[in-house]
Parts: sequence; structure tokens; C-alpha cells
Amino acid sequence: MTKRETVMHDADQQYMQQALALAARGAFGTPPNPNVGCVIVRDGQVVGRGWHERPGEPHAEVHALREAAELAQGATAYVTLEPCSHHGRTPPCADALIKAQVARVVVAMRDPNPLVAGQGIARLEAAGIKVQVGVLEQQARTLNQGFIARMERNRPWLRLKMAMSVDGRTALANGASQWITSREAREDVHRFRAQSGAVLTTARTVLMDHALMTARHPQAERQPLRVLLDRQQQVPVEHPFFAQASPVLRVVSPTTTAGSDWPEHVQTLEVQSFQQRLPLHDIFAKLAEYDVNDVWTECGAELAGALTSAGLVDEWVLYVAPKLLGDSSRGVVQLPNFHHLDQVPEMRFESVTMLGHDLRICARPLHASDRPTTGEVQS
Amino acid sequence: MTKRETVMHDADQQYMQQALALAARGAFGTPPNPNVGCVIVRDGQVVGRGWHERPGEPHAEVHALREAAELAQGATAYVTLEPCSHHGRTPPCADALIKAQVARVVVAMRDPNPLVAGQGIARLEAAGIKVQVGVLEQQARTLNQGFIARMERNRPWLRLKMAMSVDGRTALANGASQWITSREAREDVHRFRAQSGAVLTTARTVLMDHALMTARHPQAERQPLRVLLDRQQQVPVEHPFFAQASPVLRVVSPTTTAGSDWPEHVQTLEVQSFQQRLPLHDIFAKLAEYDVNDVWTECGAELAGALTSAGLVDEWVLYVAPKLLGDSSRGVVQLPNFHHLDQVPEMRFESVTMLGHDLRICARPLHASDRPTTGEVQS
Repeated sequence: MTKRETVMHDADQQYMQQALALAARGAFGTPPNPNVGCVIVRDGQVVGRGWHERPGEPHAEVHALREAAELAQGATAYVTLEPCSHHGRTPPCADALIKAQVARVVVAMRDPNPLVAGQGIARLEAAGIKVQVGVLEQQARTLNQGFIARMERNRPWLRLKMAMSVDGRTALANGASQWITSREAREDVHRFRAQSGAVLTTARTVLMDHALMTARHPQAERQPLRVLLDRQQQVPVEHPFFAQASPVLRVVSPTTTAGSDWPEHVQTLEVQSFQQRLPLHDIFAKLAEYDVNDVWTECGAELAGALTSAGLVDEWVLYVAPKLLGDSSRGVVQLPNFHHLDQVPEMRFESVTMLGHDLRICARPLHASDRPTTGEVQS
Repeated sequence: MTKRETVMHDADQQYMQQALALAARGAFGTPPNPNVGCVIVRDGQVVGRGWHERPGEPHAEVHALREAAELAQGATAYVTLEPCSHHGRTPPCADALIKAQVARVVVAMRDPNPLVAGQGIARLEAAGIKVQVGVLEQQARTLNQGFIARMERNRPWLRLKMAMSVDGRTALANGASQWITSREAREDVHRFRAQSGAVLTTARTVLMDHALMTARHPQAERQPLRVLLDRQQQVPVEHPFFAQASPVLRVVSPTTTAGSDWPEHVQTLEVQSFQQRLPLHDIFAKLAEYDVNDVWTECGAELAGALTSAGLVDEWVLYVAPKLLGDSSRGVVQLPNFHHLDQVPEMRFESVTMLGHDLRICARPLHASDRPTTGEVQS
């Protein structure tokens, strides 16, 4: 690599970083669309900036091109996601970039939809624009991991929240549980809800905790779909959970008895149970069909264990309070009675953050090939 | 404060920081003595440095004065602990500083022994030396918290180690438990053992885990006293625990049956049990009499809970492995069956460190007055 190329490489990363930061501003508004940011640079000056704000509104490239106006001609555009090539609710961004006569487009990642990936890039190249793909690709993927999960595997990105004492307990033996974690931790929960396409919970959690599962966060722009697993239809229509106007999807087992008269914002999905359990994989595939990118799950130890055992958890978000509840208290996750330690679910700690007096630990599943070997030692 | 005083103040902190760093080098060797460091400064130049290395050897001031030689005359000495005024195994350091004709002594903290505190300082001042006390006092106290605990309250500083999965479990239901945490975490455990005056454990842990509880660390200079709580005298003299030559203190209930013939490095302390429990407060007072500053505790859920409930834990050191064992597995701490969340032991997280793929969380007890109030919110 020549010196000039190295310098250009560093600059590409730097501008893409700016585009990624712009993209992240859409986190509360864009679902089910991806977060996208765009920076237009001419002669070492940023002349246009944009990000996608909410569905139906212009894409990032359009905002940036508007700001750049005639300065876009001969410029380089940095986009965090391959420009679209199809007419959706807005015209194709690839065409807009061609029309503005940009000289070069740097793309962090291809469109994750295997059916359209590469078409936007091909269109730009056919118009004589130089295209470079893969700058800060990993960051770009992390930014839209839910959207990518839905596109690539037809299943949303699943975060499982667990709030517990430092000895892994959620409630005293008598059920006393609320306010184990601090105000800061609860605000963080509302932020995650507000950025998620759906919040998943169970009838038991709603009934026990009087939970509404709405996103109450100053930056919330939209409400997540509240998905209620209620196989036995235990939560009555009069429950405050349904009084909230934001959309609800009840997932129930089919019954022959006459149902209640549900308000318009409550939809019901009937799925066949198997051995008194709802088919979780099918439900998540269904949520992908409903354009849900990210599912934020708040539930009890039973569903937490079922999701973990089924390998459906993409990320655990653990709020750990500086308390000891002791071993007669209720555990955070129900798992099978393992016989060997090499059978237990393993994870990789990704980050630890102090929230008020609590810790937030984010972790992801460890795949079998990542497992470290642990030598024997005498204790 | 004049500008000159501010500058001097900053310089004092900086030199005291150097003295504290020197003091810390003694961590593996000095017990039961405190860690002490000394820096001698003349005309803005460090002319002498010293730290206390091990009992019976010269104190920090003596090393530093030797290096400074005649340059000590008119210099300032920075000492992390009040210079001693009594003849122990070495002559009083206050006298050495007077003899060397230093002009000024800066002391981080007074001698914590209430019977001698201030005497070293008084001796220096009587000789016309300017003395300043309290520079970086908090750091100095942290460095010797075990020594201070023994002096001020006649009880060692007690650290309780707990190794567990992220859901607070130490072993599967069938008892399978070893190697829950990583090699890096176990090395850290040996470092703590090597820096402690005593390692406390129980018959059950020794028998179940075949634990030796010796300090196997590259920097270990001495072995901690291994204190074995063995009320019912269950660990036989043939057990490998006793084959290790480092000293052991067995704490047992008195019996009338003839005892075994114990090797010389094994001492036995008989204490009356109460309701089938050993009197923990009495045992720790006894350990202070044995010159133990720091006790490192490795035990099961029962003693962990008893120490926690008795308010005897000064610091929890939690090694958290990125695994879920599930709620049929064994809990880390046995506590009473609480009825209200405001009855549970609370702590304050002090630090979180990544050790290999594990976390080490250090926490200290939260005193009632520190407890935050937690407002009600709807979940």
C-alpha cells in the first residue's frame, strides 16, 4: 500500500465513523427499517450529512445530498449500508447518488437481504461510480444486528433481560421482588424497550408484576409491539396491560370457547402448543414476518430457561443489584438438571457498565468452538 | 493558600504517591507487619527510597536513609505510616530520622495502634523537625486495611471469596463444581492467599474439594496460616491438607476422646460451640491475637451465609463465570428466609475486573445509612 492509499484508508474509516454516529441517532425511530447514516465529503470537507429518522421518511443519502446540493458533484459519499436500488416508500438512493454525480461511494456493508444484496452497488458501478465496500463493516453490522438477523435468518435479534441480586435471585421465597434494581437500571430497561421492535413477556409476569411493558423513556418515538405469551388466555381483557393503546399481540393456544371482545390494538395469534409449551421458534419466525427486528424479553425463570435451552438468546442483558437474597430465594433461570458442567450454557461477557449502584452485564452465547479448555489445578 | 504552598502541596502528594507505590512492593512479604514506603527528597530530587520487605528486616525509613546518606540532612522524608518510636526487632525509625537531621517529615497516617499513635510524631517534633500528617491518608489506609483493622478493632480484615456462575451457582445438583472459573481467576485467588495472614476454610470444603489452601503463586514469599474450622474433627491427620508443611490452626469443639498425634505445624484451638455453631467473633478475635491482619475465606454456602449474617465480611471477592447453571443447582450463600427486601444484606460494588473470561467483582458492605431510597415505578 502506498502512503497516499494509507492516508485515504484512514480518512475513509474516519468519515465512515461519522456516518455510523449519525446512523445511531435513528435508533429510537427507524424500526422496522435499519439505521443508516451518510456523510458526503469533497476536497477533505464534509459537505453533507444525513441519517434515516423514521419509516416513510427520506433515507440518509437523500438528507445528505440535499445538504451538499451541487457540491455533491465529484464528491465521495460514505454510507453505512448499501444504497437501495428499489422503489419502496421512497425512490432508490442509488439513483439519487448517480443523479448527483458523486465520484465515489464507500459502503460499510452490503444489504443483508440476500435477494437484493449487491444490486445497489451494481447500479452505481454501471453508472461509472467507483465503489468500495467493507469499511468498518463490523461496526455497521452491530448497529443493525436486529435488521440483519431478520433478513439473514428470518428471526429477530433476541435480548433476554434478567434483573437479579448478585447471587442470582429475582425474588424472595414469598415472591417479594419489585425494585431489586435501581432507578438507573430501570431507565435503561425503558431505553431498550423504546429501541426494540417488540417487547416479549408472559401472562405470569404481567399478572404477578402488574407490568405494562410500554416504553416510558424521554427519547421514545414509538411504542414496541407488546407480545404476550398467554397460552391459557389468563390475562383478562380488563387488565391494565390492554388499557394502554400501543399494539399488543396475544399468542394463545386455540380454544373452542367464545373469546372476549378485544379492542382494535390487540391482535391474537393462535398457535398449537406441544406438551403444554408454545412453539418458540415458530413464534419468532412469525415476529420476523411482522417486521420485528429486535425482541426485548422480560419474563420469569421458566421462559428465560426455555429460550436459553432452545439456543434462541442472542444477548443476555443482566442487571445485577448489590444485594444477597440467599439460596432460599427464587432463581433467575430454570434449566434442566445437568449432570456435567460441560452441558451448561456458556456465554462471553461483552461489557460491564455501572448503572446507579447496579451493574449491567451484556453477554452473548459462546459457541462450542469458542469454548476454552480449562486445565486441572489443585485448589 | 499561597502559590508556593499549592506547589508544595502538589509535590507532597506526588512524593507520597511514590512512597505508597514502594510500600505496595512489600505486599507478599511484610505480614504481620504493615506495608510502609519512604521517599527522601532534597532540593526537588529523590535521594533515598525504601520499603519494608519482611518482618525482622529494616523498616522503610532505614533503607531510604541509607541510600540518601549525608544528603538526608535538611531533606524532607515522606513516610506512608507514622515512624515508630519503640524498640522492636529494629531500633525506632523516629530516632533514625532525627539522627540523620532531616528537616521535615510528611506522614500519610498516624500509627493505627491507639496505644502508640502520635508518639513517633511527638518525638520528631520535640527534636525540632517539622511534621505534616494526612497526605494521601485514604490510600495509605487502604494499603494497610488489614493491619489497621487488627489494631483498631482487634479483628482481622475479612475477605470472603465466592466463585460462581453468573446466576449465582457454585455446583450442579449432583455436586459437580470444580473449574467453574478460569485459570486467571484461580491465579488471582492464589495471589490473595499469598498476601493474606490466614486462609480460612471448613472441614466440608477441604473434604469435598480436596483443597490444600496453600498459596501457590510465583511471588509468594511466605505461606498464610491455614485456619480449618473443624468443629466435629472430621478431617483426619492423614489428609493431604496436613501433609503440607505450612502452619495450620484447627478450630474444634472440645472432646473427651483421645486426639490424634498431630505434626508440629498443626496447632489445635478448642472453642465451645453454641447451638452446633462455632463462635465466629471469638475466633476472629483470636486470629488478631495471632497477629493475623487479613483473612481470606474460601468456604461453602453455609459459612458464607453465617459470616455475611454476622456482619463479619469486610469485602466480598466474587469470581463470576460466564455460565448458567440453572435454579436446580447449588446456591452460593445460605441466608435466613427473609420476608421483606429491606432485610437482605446490601453491598456497594467497588470494582469489576475481567480475569480471563470471568469477572471479578469486589464489593463491601453497605451500611444502613448509605442505603439509597428506591422510588416506586410501574414496570
